[in-house]
Amino acid sequence: MNKRMVLHIIGQIVALEAALLALPLIISLIYGDGDAVCFLVTVAVALAAGGALIFFSRPKSRRIYAREGFVTVAGAWILLSAIGALPFVISGQIPSYIDAFFETVSGFTTTGASILRDVGALTHGIAFWRSFTHWSGGMGVLVLVMAIAPGADGNFIHVMRAEVPGPSVGKLVPRVRETAKILYLIYIAMTALEILLLLAGGMPLFDSVVHAFGTAGTGGFGIRPDSIAGYNAYLQWVITAFMMLFGVNFNLYYFLLTKRAGTALKSRELWVYFGIFFVSAGVITASIFPTYGSLGEAARAASFQTASIMSTTGFTTADYSLWSGTAKSILLLLMFIGACAGSTAGGIKVSRVILLFKNIRAELRKMLHPRSVTTVRFEGKSVSERMLDGVKVYLAVYILIFLIGFFILSLDRFDFETNFSAVASCFNNIGPAFGAAGPAHNYADFSVLSKLTLSACMLLGRLEIYPLLLALTPATWTRK
Amino acid sequence: MNKRMVLHIIGQIVALEAALLALPLIISLIYGDGDAVCFLVTVAVALAAGGALIFFSRPKSRRIYAREGFVTVAGAWILLSAIGALPFVISGQIPSYIDAFFETVSGFTTTGASILRDVGALTHGIAFWRSFTHWSGGMGVLVLVMAIAPGADGNFIHVMRAEVPGPSVGKLVPRVRETAKILYLIYIAMTALEILLLLAGGMPLFDSVVHAFGTAGTGGFGIRPDSIAGYNAYLQWVITAFMMLFGVNFNLYYFLLTKRAGTALKSRELWVYFGIFFVSAGVITASIFPTYGSLGEAARAASFQTASIMSTTGFTTADYSLWSGTAKSILLLLMFIGACAGSTAGGIKVSRVILLFKNIRAELRKMLHPRSVTTVRFEGKSVSERMLDGVKVYLAVYILIFLIGFFILSLDRFDFETNFSAVASCFNNIGPAFGAAGPAHNYADFSVLSKLTLSACMLLGRLEIYPLLLALTPATWTRK
Repeated sequence: MNKRMVLHIIGQIVALEAALLALPLIISLIYGDGDAVCFLVTVAVALAAGGALIFFSRPKSRRIYAREGFVTVAGAWILLSAIGALPFVISGQIPSYIDAFFETVSGFTTTGASILRDVGALTHGIAFWRSFTHWSGGMGVLVLVMAIAPGADGNFIHVMRAEVPGPSVGKLVPRVRETAKILYLIYIAMTALEILLLLAGGMPLFDSVVHAFGTAGTGGFGIRPDSIAGYNAYLQWVITAFMMLFGVNFNLYYFLLTKRAGTALKSRELWVYFGIFFVSAGVITASIFPTYGSLGEAARAASFQTASIMSTTGFTTADYSLWSGTAKSILLLLMFIGACAGSTAGGIKVSRVILLFKNIRAELRKMLHPRSVTTVRFEGKSVSERMLDGVKVYLAVYILIFLIGFFILSLDRFDFETNFSAVASCFNNIGPAFGAAGPAHNYADFSVLSKLTLSACMLLGRLEIYPLLLALTPATWTRK
Repeated sequence: MNKRMVLHIIGQIVALEAALLALPLIISLIYGDGDAVCFLVTVAVALAAGGALIFFSRPKSRRIYAREGFVTVAGAWILLSAIGALPFVISGQIPSYIDAFFETVSGFTTTGASILRDVGALTHGIAFWRSFTHWSGGMGVLVLVMAIAPGADGNFIHVMRAEVPGPSVGKLVPRVRETAKILYLIYIAMTALEILLLLAGGMPLFDSVVHAFGTAGTGGFGIRPDSIAGYNAYLQWVITAFMMLFGVNFNLYYFLLTKRAGTALKSRELWVYFGIFFVSAGVITASIFPTYGSLGEAARAASFQTASIMSTTGFTTADYSLWSGTAKSILLLLMFIGACAGSTAGGIKVSRVILLFKNIRAELRKMLHPRSVTTVRFEGKSVSERMLDGVKVYLAVYILIFLIGFFILSLDRFDFETNFSAVASCFNNIGPAFGAAGPAHNYADFSVLSKLTLSACMLLGRLEIYPLLLALTPATWTRK
């Protein structure tokens, strides 16, 4: 384990956080809500911590492998959240540090679960920072470091693999650093486009920016108690569309940009993803039509909520926990599926679900013809046994973590539906759940143990389990 | 597909059911409740159906392969249940055929979920038949056919594999027929021993027999509205012990009988199984102690319920749905784990859970050392990649079926906890669930669709999914 290099990279990331914090600092100064000092203090803390890490680590070798990648990502995300929570506490807008940590983890992991009872009471700087964590966490903070830090080189593929979601991470171009840059440029362009479209629909500038951040990162923090419900139909449709778009594998946008639309449109994951969306939104529309009366309104609410849950964003325009059992269980299932690999979304990912289905079919074939050789094909290529195996083991670890989370939550005082859906929602980085953690409620009343458990679930979900799990495995730290 | 041979074996099984029905017929005549005619009619139907199948199929070749094994098992179990439901309907004690089918599937699959509002109102013959389905379904009806039918030979290993639960089925002795005989002899001896111990504790003969049937098959149908709660502490402890014992892999008893106790005691699955039991029962005892007051009573109720759920029996001595959240979620987790492979119990099975854990560990090792070769060892042998893969795919299929079942149940009018736990309970062949399907309730109020779905879940759980799934796969039926 090249510990010095791990600390060195973590130091760079913390220093980057200081830079990120400059943005809400500027917003604070512009709006003059008096919370600028909170950001100044936090910038100082981040600079000191990052500087110290960089200064004292001085790596002898820059060489890192998979294990260093995992540990770096795990350490960086925890430290980012620990420091990022400070402005909430210092400003007194979230007095409890545990609550602030929960909120920041929820932000960076693009979950959007909140302990705030009145989100409308936040000052501009704090509200901006809260949404900005979504944006920076969505594409990946380490990916950003790679895109801009001078030392980023070939070794960093291990870091990228550990941070980018999905069963496989491909480099778009030979150099990791260029890939990271391309991803961020697409991300920035799409965010800017959403801001413009929201402004065009009459949404105020501040609201447009924070909601675009929340959509881009598939996070879901809003600035109004009723989330997106108070905005007009056009704005709701724009956000619906962008939630779905940010759930698409970013590689496909790169293919589009480089005039390989054919390659992009051949993506099986893309079609299944939109297929699930249209079928689910259709069934939910039919199911809630009786309560809404108008087909247009039912379709808008159903589409918005389906896109929001599938893309694991978590914005709401309706209290879906009051919908029919059918609608609710579709949404619950969608929570687990999530969106596409290589997007900013959470969940198990559509590609993994497809691979699991193909695997089941292959198994049935093997049972009928025990001696036949079966290969699984996906996206035009035959899938290696190793990758297929990885997807299945991922499912097993996923369920194990889910059950542990659910068990710890059951020590708290809420009912089965609340506990189950809260873990599902946080682990899949969505935000709102059902029952006492539904859209009309928040996570404030959970116990400290539950809040820490859900924070762990959010991190495990965003980083796809292994980085944190490996960081806690003794074998990772032994020489060999 | 050797369809004639499939029909031939199914015919034998249906003829065997006629023989099995002779027992409740005798009980009816002894007690003179006036329901003997229901059994006479059913015996006639079974003989006619079985005879016709045997007579008209006349297989040209006796050769069968895996696919014939799966289809035979699927077809036989559905037909057995369809015919076995007749006495309930004819006697008018369960007027609806759907309800009677549900009850019979629940019997044969050793689930023990009931639609009866007053189980105490059944006549002796009907109550006996209901419990006897547990006993004959527990060890396997096809295994019984193999043990006694003259034509059973080497080919039948495919049938046995399809019916006996667990990731791998070993033959105890070279001949399949001898293996089936040995299993049934151990089964009969243990059932007899339990009857004797219950009689010794003052339980009436009829009650002892039916409860021993329910325990042996890990079924759970009782004859009193409060299940086992009304019997004395000694009887409850005897049943607790036997529920656990019938959840042990029967191969281990064979090792004991053949003086290979050392081999039996080296079983990792055995130790984990009892380990989970003692830890769970201990934690539940501590958790419910405040409500019970007496440590002895809390320990008895906790041990009974833990054994009942783990062994997937489903007898109750307390309404555990009123217990603490901790106790309830432990029981819910135990529902999924189940007992040992090669026992009469349901669930995912302890050995599969162990293999999944070992697999996760191997995956973490592979991530740290991508080029190293890792082998998983279990029960003193290294596990083949094929078997490990089978366990992982099983988990994926298991979850898929579970989600489909849960989704269909959510169309009904019950709450999340009820739907989720009802599918968990039926799919894992336990019986009582939580909420509106808890120990103090029954399945009578579910819709017809829900009852059929739960019946399918019970069959899928007992037969470990593949036989039914393959019977529904077109590729099974095509030549190749």
